[in-house]
Amino acid sequence: MREINRVCVVGAGAIGSLLVGHIGALPDIEMTVLVRRESHARDLNEKGLKVSGKSDLTAEVLASTEPADLGEVDLVIIATKTTAVEASVTKFKGHFPNATVMMIQNGLGCERLVRENGDWPIISGLTFMSGVRRSDTHVDYELDTPTWIGPWDAEADKPGYGTIKQVEELIKRSGLICEAYEDLRPVQWSKLIFNSAVNAIGAVTNTAHVPFYADTENLSDLGNLVHDMMAEGVAIANALGITLSSDPWAMNCKAVSQGGSHGTDEYAHITSMLDDVRNQTYTEVDWITGSIVRAAREAGVPAPHHETLYRLVKGIEKGWSLDESEH
Amino acid sequence: MREINRVCVVGAGAIGSLLVGHIGALPDIEMTVLVRRESHARDLNEKGLKVSGKSDLTAEVLASTEPADLGEVDLVIIATKTTAVEASVTKFKGHFPNATVMMIQNGLGCERLVRENGDWPIISGLTFMSGVRRSDTHVDYELDTPTWIGPWDAEADKPGYGTIKQVEELIKRSGLICEAYEDLRPVQWSKLIFNSAVNAIGAVTNTAHVPFYADTENLSDLGNLVHDMMAEGVAIANALGITLSSDPWAMNCKAVSQGGSHGTDEYAHITSMLDDVRNQTYTEVDWITGSIVRAAREAGVPAPHHETLYRLVKGIEKGWSLDESEH
Repeated sequence: MREINRVCVVGAGAIGSLLVGHIGALPDIEMTVLVRRESHARDLNEKGLKVSGKSDLTAEVLASTEPADLGEVDLVIIATKTTAVEASVTKFKGHFPNATVMMIQNGLGCERLVRENGDWPIISGLTFMSGVRRSDTHVDYELDTPTWIGPWDAEADKPGYGTIKQVEELIKRSGLICEAYEDLRPVQWSKLIFNSAVNAIGAVTNTAHVPFYADTENLSDLGNLVHDMMAEGVAIANALGITLSSDPWAMNCKAVSQGGSHGTDEYAHITSMLDDVRNQTYTEVDWITGSIVRAAREAGVPAPHHETLYRLVKGIEKGWSLDESEH
Repeated sequence: MREINRVCVVGAGAIGSLLVGHIGALPDIEMTVLVRRESHARDLNEKGLKVSGKSDLTAEVLASTEPADLGEVDLVIIATKTTAVEASVTKFKGHFPNATVMMIQNGLGCERLVRENGDWPIISGLTFMSGVRRSDTHVDYELDTPTWIGPWDAEADKPGYGTIKQVEELIKRSGLICEAYEDLRPVQWSKLIFNSAVNAIGAVTNTAHVPFYADTENLSDLGNLVHDMMAEGVAIANALGITLSSDPWAMNCKAVSQGGSHGTDEYAHITSMLDDVRNQTYTEVDWITGSIVRAAREAGVPAPHHETLYRLVKGIEKGWSLDESEH
C-alpha cells in the first residue's frame, strides 16, 4: 500500500468521533467524514472536532453527507454500529476505488456487507476504547484501551499484513492504542464470546454486568448460565480451529470483581445491548450472539444457550411492535 | 374416607374464592376459610362470598386468620400461589388432624412443603379455571375450564383413589368442572411443560403469548426456542417414564392461533409470570421451570433450555434489588 494521507471516517458517533479527532489532528492527514445528517456535516466543517478527556485535540475536517464531496481517500474506517453498516456502505458504493476499508464493529460478519458492495481490501477490527459524545463536534475520550486490527479471516491474504501494520502505525501515531494481529480471530473470538453472553443476558434480565454474573453456588444462580454459555462459545471456537487468547469466563469474573464497590469506576456495567433494549433501539444481537449461532451451525456444533439468548433478544425486539390491546 | 361435610379453603384469591363460593353454597357443606388479613376474614364472615359471571351464588362461610377458630375439617384445599404455600402450611401445622389436603398450585413440588409440616394424606391438583376478584367478598367466574386432581406421585397409594373420586364429585356438584385421574402426571406434565416455556419466555421477553411464539421460519424466530424448550421438556418427562396426554407444542400453536385477532377473547395472553415480573413480584419459576430443571438432574437428562430460562427469570428477580448507581 502506498502512504496513507487521506482518511475517511464513516459515522461520527462516539467511536467515530474519537478516530476523527485523533487521526484528523495529525498534520500530514487529510481527514474527511461521511455522516448522515446535513447539520452534523455543517457543524463539523465549521468547528472541526474537539477531543477532551484523556486527549486534548482539535481536528479540522471536511465532512459531508455525500461521498462525492469528499474526493479520493486511501483509508475508509467504518465506525457506525453494526445495524447501520449496510446503509453506510450502500451510500459510498462506487466511491473511494483505491481505498482500503477498515471495520471496527462489535460482533462478526459485517465485512460481508462491505464485500457485497465493492472490492475494497478489508481490514477487520474491534475496539475497547470508549468515549462520550458531548455534541456533534465534541467527544470526551474516556477509556484509553486498545483497538485490535487484523486480516478478515475470509480473505486473509488481502490487503496484506504490511498495510495492516501501516494502519496500526497511523492510529498509534494519533495517540490512540492499536495492536495489529496476523490472525485476529483468537482475540476477536475471546471478546465475542464474552460480549455475546454478557450483553444478551444483561439485555434479557435488565441487569447491569454485576457480581452475581459470577455466582455459581446454587442451581438457579445466573453465573451458571454465564459459565455454560461461555463454555459453549469456547467449544464452537475450538471446532472452528480457533485457539482463544483469553478465557471468557475468567474475563467475566475479573470484570465483575473490578466493577464491584471496591473496584475502579472505569468498567462499563450497562452493556450497549441493555442500553439499546431500554431505549427500544434495535440491538446488535444478529452480529454478536447471532454470529456465534450461525458459526455453530456451519461447524455442526450444538449451541442451545446461544440459540436461546439470540431468540430471546429478537423476541424482545419483536415485542416492541405488539399492541397488547389487540390480543 | 368418610363423607366430606367440612371444607377449609386456605387463601381466598381468585381461585380460592371460586372454590369457596361454589363449594360453600352447597347446603350440606360447612365452609371455612383461612386467610391472611383480619379485615378479609371479618368481611367474609359478615357478607359471605358472592360469585358472579358464569355462576350466580353466595356462600355463607366461617373465616379466620387463625386455624384454631375453624374447628375440625374433612378436606383442606390450599389455594394460595406456590410462593405462599410454605407460610400457609406453617400456619395450620398441628391443626385439622383428620383432613385430607388438596393442592391446586401451578407447577410441581409444593406437596413436599405440606408433608414437611404434617402427615395429612395429599391430593395433587391443577386448575385451568379463572376468575377475577372484584373485592374481598366477590369474585367473577370467567373461564369454566377444568380442575384436574389425582394422587401425589411420590405417595401414589395415599389417600386412595376412592377419596380422590369423592373430592371430584364434591367439586362437580358445586358447579365447577373437575376430573380425577388415577395417574395425574400425563396431564400435569403436559401442562407443566407448556407453562414452563410460555411463562418463562414471556417473562424474559416482556411479551404476551402471541402468534410469533409459533414462528419457526427463520433461525432467529422465537417459535424455534418455544419448540426446542418444549421438546426438551418432553424428553425429560419420557426419561421419568411419563407419557404425556397432550403435545405441548401443539397446545402452543393452538393457543396462539385461537388468541389471534380472529379468535375468542377467552385466552389469557399475559401469563402470570409476566404479570409478576411487571409488578416486580417474585414469580413461581422455582415450581415451574425450576421443577423441570431439578427433575432433569434427577433423571440425568440434559436441560440447557430449561436451565437457561430458569436462571434468566431468577436473574431478573435478583436485579430488582440492585441499585445501579452503586456500580
